[in-house]
Amino acid sequence: MPYRAPVSEFRFLFDHVVGFDQVVATERFAEATPETVNAVLGEAGKLCEEVLSPLQRAGDLHPARLENGIVRTSPGFRDGLRAIAEGGWIAIAADPEYGGMGLPMTMTTAVNDMMSAACLSLQLAPLMTQGQIEALENHASDELKELYLPKLISGEWMGTMNLTEPQAGSDVGALTTKAEPNGDGTYAITGQKIYISWGDNDISENVCHLVLARLPGAVPGTKGISLFLVPKRIPDESGAPGLANSLKVVSLEHKMGLHGSPTAVMQYDGATGWLVGEENDGMRAMFTMMNNARLGVGVQGIGAAEGAYQHALAYAEGRKQGRTENNTITDHADVRRMLATMKADTFAARAIALANAVAIDMETATGHADWAARAALLTPITKAFGTDTGIDVAELGVQVHGGMGFIEETGAAQYSRDVRVTAIYEGTNGIQSMDLVGRKLMDGGEAAYRLLDEMEADAEAARADLPELAEPVWQACETLRETTEWMVAQGAQDRFAGSVPYLRGFARVLGAHFHLKAARADRGGKHERLAAFYIHRLLPEHIGLLTHARQGAGDLYALSLDDLAA
Amino acid sequence: MPYRAPVSEFRFLFDHVVGFDQVVATERFAEATPETVNAVLGEAGKLCEEVLSPLQRAGDLHPARLENGIVRTSPGFRDGLRAIAEGGWIAIAADPEYGGMGLPMTMTTAVNDMMSAACLSLQLAPLMTQGQIEALENHASDELKELYLPKLISGEWMGTMNLTEPQAGSDVGALTTKAEPNGDGTYAITGQKIYISWGDNDISENVCHLVLARLPGAVPGTKGISLFLVPKRIPDESGAPGLANSLKVVSLEHKMGLHGSPTAVMQYDGATGWLVGEENDGMRAMFTMMNNARLGVGVQGIGAAEGAYQHALAYAEGRKQGRTENNTITDHADVRRMLATMKADTFAARAIALANAVAIDMETATGHADWAARAALLTPITKAFGTDTGIDVAELGVQVHGGMGFIEETGAAQYSRDVRVTAIYEGTNGIQSMDLVGRKLMDGGEAAYRLLDEMEADAEAARADLPELAEPVWQACETLRETTEWMVAQGAQDRFAGSVPYLRGFARVLGAHFHLKAARADRGGKHERLAAFYIHRLLPEHIGLLTHARQGAGDLYALSLDDLAA
Repeated sequence: MPYRAPVSEFRFLFDHVVGFDQVVATERFAEATPETVNAVLGEAGKLCEEVLSPLQRAGDLHPARLENGIVRTSPGFRDGLRAIAEGGWIAIAADPEYGGMGLPMTMTTAVNDMMSAACLSLQLAPLMTQGQIEALENHASDELKELYLPKLISGEWMGTMNLTEPQAGSDVGALTTKAEPNGDGTYAITGQKIYISWGDNDISENVCHLVLARLPGAVPGTKGISLFLVPKRIPDESGAPGLANSLKVVSLEHKMGLHGSPTAVMQYDGATGWLVGEENDGMRAMFTMMNNARLGVGVQGIGAAEGAYQHALAYAEGRKQGRTENNTITDHADVRRMLATMKADTFAARAIALANAVAIDMETATGHADWAARAALLTPITKAFGTDTGIDVAELGVQVHGGMGFIEETGAAQYSRDVRVTAIYEGTNGIQSMDLVGRKLMDGGEAAYRLLDEMEADAEAARADLPELAEPVWQACETLRETTEWMVAQGAQDRFAGSVPYLRGFARVLGAHFHLKAARADRGGKHERLAAFYIHRLLPEHIGLLTHARQGAGDLYALSLDDLAA
Repeated sequence: MPYRAPVSEFRFLFDHVVGFDQVVATERFAEATPETVNAVLGEAGKLCEEVLSPLQRAGDLHPARLENGIVRTSPGFRDGLRAIAEGGWIAIAADPEYGGMGLPMTMTTAVNDMMSAACLSLQLAPLMTQGQIEALENHASDELKELYLPKLISGEWMGTMNLTEPQAGSDVGALTTKAEPNGDGTYAITGQKIYISWGDNDISENVCHLVLARLPGAVPGTKGISLFLVPKRIPDESGAPGLANSLKVVSLEHKMGLHGSPTAVMQYDGATGWLVGEENDGMRAMFTMMNNARLGVGVQGIGAAEGAYQHALAYAEGRKQGRTENNTITDHADVRRMLATMKADTFAARAIALANAVAIDMETATGHADWAARAALLTPITKAFGTDTGIDVAELGVQVHGGMGFIEETGAAQYSRDVRVTAIYEGTNGIQSMDLVGRKLMDGGEAAYRLLDEMEADAEAARADLPELAEPVWQACETLRETTEWMVAQGAQDRFAGSVPYLRGFARVLGAHFHLKAARADRGGKHERLAAFYIHRLLPEHIGLLTHARQGAGDLYALSLDDLAA
């Protein structure tokens, strides 16, 4: 069951739902004309359909493996990654000075969505490289940029992110990897890092590790962390990969899914590294990388949802059952409920992700703080809701398959297993929700209220035409506003006690806003019907979620660990 | 991280929540004294902790496999199954005339819960055998009973259920396996059956297949189906397993989880079978088996939830993080939210399952139709909510583990993969919800209203003591009553369009009822605190679910397959 790139869906979202017209109207992104967008989406879609999608099963059946210290990637992945690199798809948003195309993040987001749907474990490789390119563009010295960016953008070299250590998971500040000055401007990096996605491969000429470490005498916590670029092979004078650096892959993890993506334990034994950004300022550079990586991981969830949805729909349409020979299980109300839920939620999550990308592009193009705040607000929502949606939709995909869903040969289970990690890595979804109610509401809720004002104004405007859809959306916005006001008035602990249901409730309401926009743009059409399904059936979940969100920490901590003991 | 049998939790539920006192007060179950219950739960718990729990990982790592036509089971499973058989745990509820103990189904339910938590893939074997014992007790001839029941009850022989065929999944009536009279009272069975759990093994002396098939000239659909007992080896004159029957395992499925349970494709080539019950009345006998199997599968979900919960709690309590050396991730509000959700939902699902078993016992003891209707009403709820809870709790267990949750070595992922099938087999949860809003409301809602009357009376009685818990439960009962009235007034299609959210909403409210009972029995104690968590944070979900349930089929079918196309 081949993947079909949803190019016309992206086109509709760009034109009518997520405000891409604002991006194209800027000088910075004036080149992103409809023709360019169509060409990019069409070509990328074709690559995903024809080259990447056929690799999906191979990655699962033949996991990457470690052989005598070298990571051997899954069959076909070499060709897949080369095709991505040769098409220029790694870094269409990157700086043209170094070989990028300078196109909007909104377009990267659509391309990443399609690549994730086609082959998630493979797509993680360019996603990591994209993050590294961003970090270097923003924080590295010109010398490092000139040496590394062209290689990363062209795909000759690949990038990784090294944050986590065995004793320092979500608490990044607890990391202990050391960086000692070598006296020649370089540093000797020593320590162990875990969960390094695509920590090595047998495809690219070089692998460039961005590693968080501590300089001698650095203060404890996140303020004493610096960022280093540590290549697998040290570039020689000509810039070509030279001597092997003092680092190695200790082992690869045996994971629930995403088998095609090698997840490495990395050991650095005095490896030569170069400082990126200022000393002790590593977290700031890492956040540049993480913010866009969070958007990217949310989009992985959405792509996986699309893949799982198409897979389930094709199965259901082919699964005969019922009174006549033409009946299939799609005639069953509950199968149709599942399919419609999958489609409506994927649409909502995708609209949120694209609106997030539009905000990033507008920030880039205009430098306006409001757009920066919008992007910052939406990022944890995109990450958590995108990946929750990926997991929920893939689960429904298994269920649509009935007994066949549990049998690996159909591929339905693989979507579910592969996408599961997206709710964990790049900051668990719990961490995302703390980011939302903590850092992102620290402005007193200003960015959230500004978004709610727009949402309510849109709902008001829709009342005349679509009263049955507009009214519940407006009411839901009010409930979200009240809950946001409650959040802003609380201390950290009470916010955190309701942060996950708050984020989910926020996403539910925001998804309704975009569905309503789609309905207005497609009166009497399929988007209006899908919006009706979402607004009448899925939106009401926000009531329970936002009620939960407002409970505070009291009754949660009243439950002692003794109470919780089995 | 070893499993600890929650014996005191069962004791509390029996004594204060699910009305087990009524069962013990009957003549039929007078032997189920507190001493007997304690002895049974204590002994079964010990077996689960010491013998079965250590087998959990082996089943996953070393799947059952087919070798020259023989199924080789996972390492240690032979000893585990023998220990279950020797302890008499397969059929404590079975007829004492054939070697059972005649104890209540409520106790079987608790024992099955513990065995499921300890090793789900292994526990499926005795569960299948239990269902077969029930079917034979109720429908087989005395001759068959005398020959087979003692062997099945002792565990010397094992039983399977054969319904599904490649072209007939949820639509059982479409099956085509043939049964032709041999002229000597036996029948020749020919056809292929799929998804046969524990279809064969290298442990028991014999494997007894209950097979649905069609006699020559039978009418199409479910009314032309008969049930046959088809042993792997045909008993000789002394009743010992004799000649091999004409049946074989064609292949074993490669599954997402539950690797220790061999899932077979079975081929019958004129195999000798014996009719169970009347000709063309096979579905009635099968329903006996299925109803209790549905309770049993719901309980599998609950046991898996308990196992996953204990596993996650132990991990969280050992995972240091934070300001002092004594801080662990349990100090984080969101980790605590996840743990409390896992515990509160497992409690609710378990109470529903035990109340279901109490109703079955009361039906058995009193023959009263109200108890039969109560049991029938609760069965699809137990099955679907129990297994949904298993899946959701295991998912949360993965999330509590953070990055380690995705790594197979921790075992968290295994709970999630293993339990996934429980929402599919024994009638998908969609089928359960159709059973609830279809068959189970065909009495005009009488059984549901009777239950709601009890729930509301309890909430009324709790108002004086626990107003903050009683009021939301009472309100939720009213919403459930209104939704039930709406359902009863609709045609099938409109009911089915909201059946899954209706079932889930029903379970949410019913779970609150049992939590409230627990709170009243444990004022100021942990059950009151857990009830407060459930009622204030999880119960509000019913609003969204029941709103969804009342939407009808119109907007669902307005979405055409073209609209849904990718």
